[in-house]
Amino acid sequence: MAASSADPSAPSSGPSPADPVILARDLVRCASVTPAEGGALTLLGGVLAAAGFIVHRMTLSAPGTPDVENLYARFGTRSPNLCFAGHTDVVPPGDPEHWRFPPFEGAIAEGVLHGRGAVDMKGGVAAMAAAAIDHVKATGEALPGSISFLITGDEEGPAVNGTEKVLRWMADRDERIDHCVLGEPTSRAALGDMVKIGRRGSLSGTLTVHGRQGHVGYPHLAENPIPGMVRLLAALTGERLDGGTTHFQASNLEVVSVDVGNPAYNVIPAEAKARFNVRFNELWMPDTLAAEIERRLTRAAGNEVHFSVAFEPRSSDSFLTAPGPFVELVTAAVEEATGCKPELSTTGGTSDARFIKDFCPVLEFGAVGTSMHAANESTPVTELVALKAAYAGIIARYFEAFGR
Amino acid sequence: MAASSADPSAPSSGPSPADPVILARDLVRCASVTPAEGGALTLLGGVLAAAGFIVHRMTLSAPGTPDVENLYARFGTRSPNLCFAGHTDVVPPGDPEHWRFPPFEGAIAEGVLHGRGAVDMKGGVAAMAAAAIDHVKATGEALPGSISFLITGDEEGPAVNGTEKVLRWMADRDERIDHCVLGEPTSRAALGDMVKIGRRGSLSGTLTVHGRQGHVGYPHLAENPIPGMVRLLAALTGERLDGGTTHFQASNLEVVSVDVGNPAYNVIPAEAKARFNVRFNELWMPDTLAAEIERRLTRAAGNEVHFSVAFEPRSSDSFLTAPGPFVELVTAAVEEATGCKPELSTTGGTSDARFIKDFCPVLEFGAVGTSMHAANESTPVTELVALKAAYAGIIARYFEAFGR
Repeated sequence: MAASSADPSAPSSGPSPADPVILARDLVRCASVTPAEGGALTLLGGVLAAAGFIVHRMTLSAPGTPDVENLYARFGTRSPNLCFAGHTDVVPPGDPEHWRFPPFEGAIAEGVLHGRGAVDMKGGVAAMAAAAIDHVKATGEALPGSISFLITGDEEGPAVNGTEKVLRWMADRDERIDHCVLGEPTSRAALGDMVKIGRRGSLSGTLTVHGRQGHVGYPHLAENPIPGMVRLLAALTGERLDGGTTHFQASNLEVVSVDVGNPAYNVIPAEAKARFNVRFNELWMPDTLAAEIERRLTRAAGNEVHFSVAFEPRSSDSFLTAPGPFVELVTAAVEEATGCKPELSTTGGTSDARFIKDFCPVLEFGAVGTSMHAANESTPVTELVALKAAYAGIIARYFEAFGR
Repeated sequence: MAASSADPSAPSSGPSPADPVILARDLVRCASVTPAEGGALTLLGGVLAAAGFIVHRMTLSAPGTPDVENLYARFGTRSPNLCFAGHTDVVPPGDPEHWRFPPFEGAIAEGVLHGRGAVDMKGGVAAMAAAAIDHVKATGEALPGSISFLITGDEEGPAVNGTEKVLRWMADRDERIDHCVLGEPTSRAALGDMVKIGRRGSLSGTLTVHGRQGHVGYPHLAENPIPGMVRLLAALTGERLDGGTTHFQASNLEVVSVDVGNPAYNVIPAEAKARFNVRFNELWMPDTLAAEIERRLTRAAGNEVHFSVAFEPRSSDSFLTAPGPFVELVTAAVEEATGCKPELSTTGGTSDARFIKDFCPVLEFGAVGTSMHAANESTPVTELVALKAAYAGIIARYFEAFGR
């Protein structure tokens, strides 16, 4: 197994805080599986503090969830405040046997950094930090604004003691951010091919159809809930929610489970349950969507089908940072650093941008996500260098456009 | 707690084999929960042997099932052979706390026999035996035919080592029966209000719709099996199988369970399963019905839905003993003894008549079934007496009509 020090493509030794590869490697070596901090925020905070950032650490807690450490750091006191957001926690590595290199060794071999979090998203955090440190070292106090970092340790977990609460902590202190770049892995095949300017919202719920148990030989004495469930699910999925918008795909409802759990062939069951999730665009809010779902179910049920529907308390709104100067400067910087003209996308799952969008325009740009959450997660060294260049370009163009 | 001997309505003491109440009580006292014989067949065999019946006992077995005792007894050697069929095994009593009288005490209180099996169907067995014993005592060798009993200990259990195998045992010995009365509880509200002249068949199966697992945020990369399942179930249940026949209700398909078992709201599942049972009339055989189900599924699936369907190996055919001299003599005897003109029905679950119908015309008549399988199963003494009178009338009319 190649050690990183034996790799000719590894950067030269000696701590260099502006080197995204060394910083990414050192972060990978911190075993920060949610909710463990693993030394990652301490490492990052130290590097930022050394460059002149004021670093705040906050341990956040809630009943029923583990305490989680978070970090907010800022260079400068003036507006505008360009915030880089991300996380240092990672998903568990799974069976170590499936890894070519130990997941927390941070091996660099044949020009590739290996390890859990290399892509999602310690590589991104390192590239953002290296770009920002270079920039503030060059400008010093002359920076026409501020650069800040909002880095959580609770993105891959319940996300209860993370970004959302840090933003509240900041609001309580009048700590304002003006624009935000979230460094999640958004690139698909090549670095720079996609920037996310929004995300769909998410709403989950459970539909229960109530019947009356009985013997299958005497169906008139029972009330089978399954035909009613079939009717309601057909109504729920038979008609599209919308046709999509300029920047969003059509909203989509998926029934993810149907469960009766009746082991007997000669018994008509009393109840059937279905669980569903909707990913929705800016034409809907969770409450308008819930009302539409209830309307469809009520109409399809008529007087014959008895049902109830319950929505999960934690839904998320959709968000969109519409194309404009901020989006344009980011895409120009990405294209310059990577040679790719990024597609402006709103696809995929949710991210912490759903919390940030309530405070300022936010978009997401980062590494190629192919290997994230998988065994042998890895990122080429060249990609980390290009990623730093893209973030550096974003910083430069941002203060050209918005600096005072 | 009243003991039967203290009950003024209890028959006078002294063994009287033709007394259906004493015989029913004594049978109830045998704790013959399937597969236990509990002394019930020994008791019955002794009573029949004392009246001149030749009694055969056979212990039948099969891998994976418990051994079960059975009985075949015959008075006379000539045709026609009128067979009374039934069982002495009972379902478990459940929690004894729910019983007013201990389930195997055979308490007779206020004119009611209490206990597990009083209705299903030790009362019926006792009434049939008492009627037959009286008859053969009166006719002796002059009986213009034979009377026989096919009594199993495996009706409430797997039904593998019971009636079906006894019939094979009989066939191997050229032991032929010409008509059969099965003494299951067929009466609904009043004794005599229903005679079953057939039963629907039963076919069970499992439908699986195959999809491709994925993230709910990227539905185009996955294939949700649930909409396909909804479509197939709608096709399966949307069109009736038939409109019923002169003697049968319409065939009926019930989907008894749908199961996906996906606990996550953000995952599209790989597979959905549904289980169904069909109760069908004489317009179908298990194979023609299976073909129709596959035809409907294939048509509804088109090229879009990938499914497979598997049928349970143990299906049962429907049967019908069409109205004619045998049905007429039974209904006339029932009406005479009970004052009820019985409805000729083919409703309800399956019974051992599904095996007997391959050998001779069979119909079912017996007690009011309301309390069967429940706690506090019980039958009025007057009903046992009337039931014996009905069976006696059947025997008398049978040999008038068919005796040689």
